[in-house]
Amino acid sequence: MKWIPIPLVLACALCLGQSPDDSQPATSNVMGSPYPRVHSDLRATFHLAAPDAQKVQVDVGGHKYDMAKDASGAWTGTSAPLVPGFHYYSLIVDGVAIDDPGSETFFGAGREFSGIEVPEKGVDFYDARDVPHGEVRERWYHSAITGRWRRCFVYTPPGYDANPSKRYPVLYLQHGAGEDERGWGLQGRVNFILDNLIAEGKAVPMLIVMDRGYATRAGEPDAPAWPPVRQQASGAPRPDAAQAFADRVRVFGDVVIADLIPMIDSTYRTLSDRDHRAMAGLSMGGMQTFDIALHHLDKFAYIGGFSGARVPFGNDAFDPRASYGGVMADAAAFNRKVKLLWLGVGTAEPERMYTSIHGLHESLEKAGIKHVYWESPGTAHEWQTWRRDLYHFAPLLFQN
Amino acid sequence: MKWIPIPLVLACALCLGQSPDDSQPATSNVMGSPYPRVHSDLRATFHLAAPDAQKVQVDVGGHKYDMAKDASGAWTGTSAPLVPGFHYYSLIVDGVAIDDPGSETFFGAGREFSGIEVPEKGVDFYDARDVPHGEVRERWYHSAITGRWRRCFVYTPPGYDANPSKRYPVLYLQHGAGEDERGWGLQGRVNFILDNLIAEGKAVPMLIVMDRGYATRAGEPDAPAWPPVRQQASGAPRPDAAQAFADRVRVFGDVVIADLIPMIDSTYRTLSDRDHRAMAGLSMGGMQTFDIALHHLDKFAYIGGFSGARVPFGNDAFDPRASYGGVMADAAAFNRKVKLLWLGVGTAEPERMYTSIHGLHESLEKAGIKHVYWESPGTAHEWQTWRRDLYHFAPLLFQN
Repeated sequence: MKWIPIPLVLACALCLGQSPDDSQPATSNVMGSPYPRVHSDLRATFHLAAPDAQKVQVDVGGHKYDMAKDASGAWTGTSAPLVPGFHYYSLIVDGVAIDDPGSETFFGAGREFSGIEVPEKGVDFYDARDVPHGEVRERWYHSAITGRWRRCFVYTPPGYDANPSKRYPVLYLQHGAGEDERGWGLQGRVNFILDNLIAEGKAVPMLIVMDRGYATRAGEPDAPAWPPVRQQASGAPRPDAAQAFADRVRVFGDVVIADLIPMIDSTYRTLSDRDHRAMAGLSMGGMQTFDIALHHLDKFAYIGGFSGARVPFGNDAFDPRASYGGVMADAAAFNRKVKLLWLGVGTAEPERMYTSIHGLHESLEKAGIKHVYWESPGTAHEWQTWRRDLYHFAPLLFQN
Repeated sequence: MKWIPIPLVLACALCLGQSPDDSQPATSNVMGSPYPRVHSDLRATFHLAAPDAQKVQVDVGGHKYDMAKDASGAWTGTSAPLVPGFHYYSLIVDGVAIDDPGSETFFGAGREFSGIEVPEKGVDFYDARDVPHGEVRERWYHSAITGRWRRCFVYTPPGYDANPSKRYPVLYLQHGAGEDERGWGLQGRVNFILDNLIAEGKAVPMLIVMDRGYATRAGEPDAPAWPPVRQQASGAPRPDAAQAFADRVRVFGDVVIADLIPMIDSTYRTLSDRDHRAMAGLSMGGMQTFDIALHHLDKFAYIGGFSGARVPFGNDAFDPRASYGGVMADAAAFNRKVKLLWLGVGTAEPERMYTSIHGLHESLEKAGIKHVYWESPGTAHEWQTWRRDLYHFAPLLFQN
C-alpha cells in the first residue's frame, strides 16, 4: 500500500464538496444527490440552498431541528440519531413544509413527502439481493361500485410467467391513512421482502394485491386522503367529517368484495378458495382488514393487522361475543375456521396505539381466540414496524 | 328542470370553498386537492398556504406569475392560458423552488417536480378508456456493465398473460435528460396510448421497455441526472463535465446491448430478431436512440427520435456519408435495411432545437435517406409533443 500524504487526502475530500466524515448519501435520495447524508451513528445531515429564506428547519417524524446558513446561502442541519428504517420528513422554509429536492418523494399524509432511508446494521431482508425477482405490476380496472377506473399494484412472484399453468394464493395488503396503493411498493419494499423470503424457502410463492384504500360511490365526488377529519372554511371541525371519512373507507370494503377480488381472480392465475386468500393491512388498512375479512370469512382464512386500529372509527369496546357480527362468539368454531389472526405493534408506538392493540391481544387471549401477537422492538408507528410485520407474517401464510 | 334561486347556487359554491367559476381541479392533483385548478380557457389557478412567506410565485414552464396573499395567509395566482398537455411547475417561496403539496410529483430536471395536466379539447388518446388494459411492470435486473441492480418498466399489452404461447415485438423507449425510467409511464401515459391504439386496431400488440438512460461502469460512483454539466464548488464549470456526462449516457448503450436486451428476451415472450425490435426516445433519449440503433442495425429495424438531439454531445455537422460510422453512405442499402426512421419535433420548440431537427430532415432528404418527418402543432419541448409522437409512431411499427 502506498503512502499518501495527508494534505492530498484532505484535498480530495474538499474537491468532492464533502466534509471528511463517515456519512453516506441516503439510498432514498434522487440519483447523485449528496444530501441528505446518514452518519455511522445514524444521525442525518440535511441541506438546502435558500439564500433568501429567513428560517429553515428539518422535521423528521415530528422532531424539528434548526438548520444554519453558510456564506453561500446554503442551510445545513443534523438530526439526532434516527431509528433504522424509513422516515417521512419535511424541510420548513419560512413556515412552509416543503419537499427536499435531494430526496425521492413518497405519498403519505395526503401529499408527496420526502423520505429518508436509515440502514439497519446487518439487516437486508428488504434489500435487492442476488435472488430471482418478481414483478410489481400496475393494473387498471373499472369499479362498478365507484363508477371509476382504479389503479392497483400486483406483486407476481419469480416464475409466474414461466409456469403458465401454476395457480397462486393471494394476499390483499393495504396501506395506511394518508398513503395510497404505492406505499407497500415504495416505502414497504414488498417485492424485495417477498423475493428474499421465497428464495430462502420461507414463504410460498404468492400474489400480493395492493389497492387504494379509499372509494366513493358512483356519482359522489372524490375526497382527500388526509386529514381524515376535514375542517370547514371557518376552521371549525365539520361535524359530519368523521362519519364521511368512515363511509369513504367503508365503501372500499364493497369495492374489495364486488370489484377487486373478482377482477383479480379472472385476470391472474389465482387459487380462489378462502384457504388461499389472505388480507392484511397497516394502521387504517388493519382496521379495514378486520372489518372486511371478519365480515367475510367465506372469503378469507388468514387475517393480519399491522399496528391496525382495533375497531373501526370509534372507541367501542371490543366484545368477542358481539364485535364483527359476533363472528368470534364460538371460539372453537372461529379457531377452526381462521387459520391465522395476526396482531403486530411496535414497542415505541404512541401509548394509545400500543395500549389498544395490546388490549385487543389480551381480550382475545381471555376469549380463547387463537392468534399471533408480535412486537417490533424499538420501532414506532412507521414503515420499519410494518416491513418486519410482513417479514414474519408472510411465512405463516398458505403453508398447508 | 326545477328553478333554483340564484343565492342558493352561490351559497353552494361558497360552502365548497370554491369561487363560482368554471374551473376544475387538475387531474394531476393528489386525490381530493382542490388546487391547482384549470379554467375552461386553460388558465390555471395555483394556491399555497404560507402565512409567513414574504413572496410567492408560480413558475410554469419558465413563465413566472406573482401570487397574492389573502387575509388567511393563503397565496393564490393565475397563469395565462396554458398549452394543453403536461407541464412541470414549481411554486417559488422566498426564492426557493418547491413542490406544490396539492400536486402529484414527476421526476424531471433531476428532482421530483409538481406537474399540471391541461386537458386538450376532444382529445382522449392518452386517457383511460373503456378498452382492455395492459400492464406496466416494474422489473429489477442485475447489470454486468454497471455492477448494480437496475429498475426498468415493461408495458405488456392486453392479452399477454392469456396467450402464453404468443410472442411479441419490442419497442425500447427512452426518457429525456433529467428524467428517468418512470417518465413514459407517469408523464407520457404510454400504457393508455398503447391500450387505445391496440383496441382500435391501429397498433399491433407489443412490449415496450422503458429503462433508466444513465449508467456508470462498475466501481464508478453514481452521478446526478441533472444538470448535465456540473459546476465546481467555485462556480466555474468543470472542464471535464460535458465529457463525463457524454460518457455516462454512452455507458447506457453498452447496458442496452449487453444487459437489457438479453434480459428482456430471456424473461418475456419476445420476437427477438431485428425485424421485431424498435428503439425510440425523446430529447436525450432520441440522441441515445440514434447512437445505439444506428451503430447496431443488426439489432434494430425501426428507429425514432422525438425532439431528439441530432448528434451526440456537440455541434458536429451531420454527414450522411460519415456520421454514425457511415451507416447511411449507401442510401439504397440503408433504406432496404431500416424499415422506419422517424424524426419528430414540436413547432413551438426552442429555435435551436427546431432548426437542428428540421435541418437533419433536409440533410436526409438530400441524401435520399427514407424517413418520416413529423411536426407537432403548437407544442414545445414537452410531453404533449412526445405523446403525439408515440401516437403516430407506434402504428408504423411491426406492420409486416
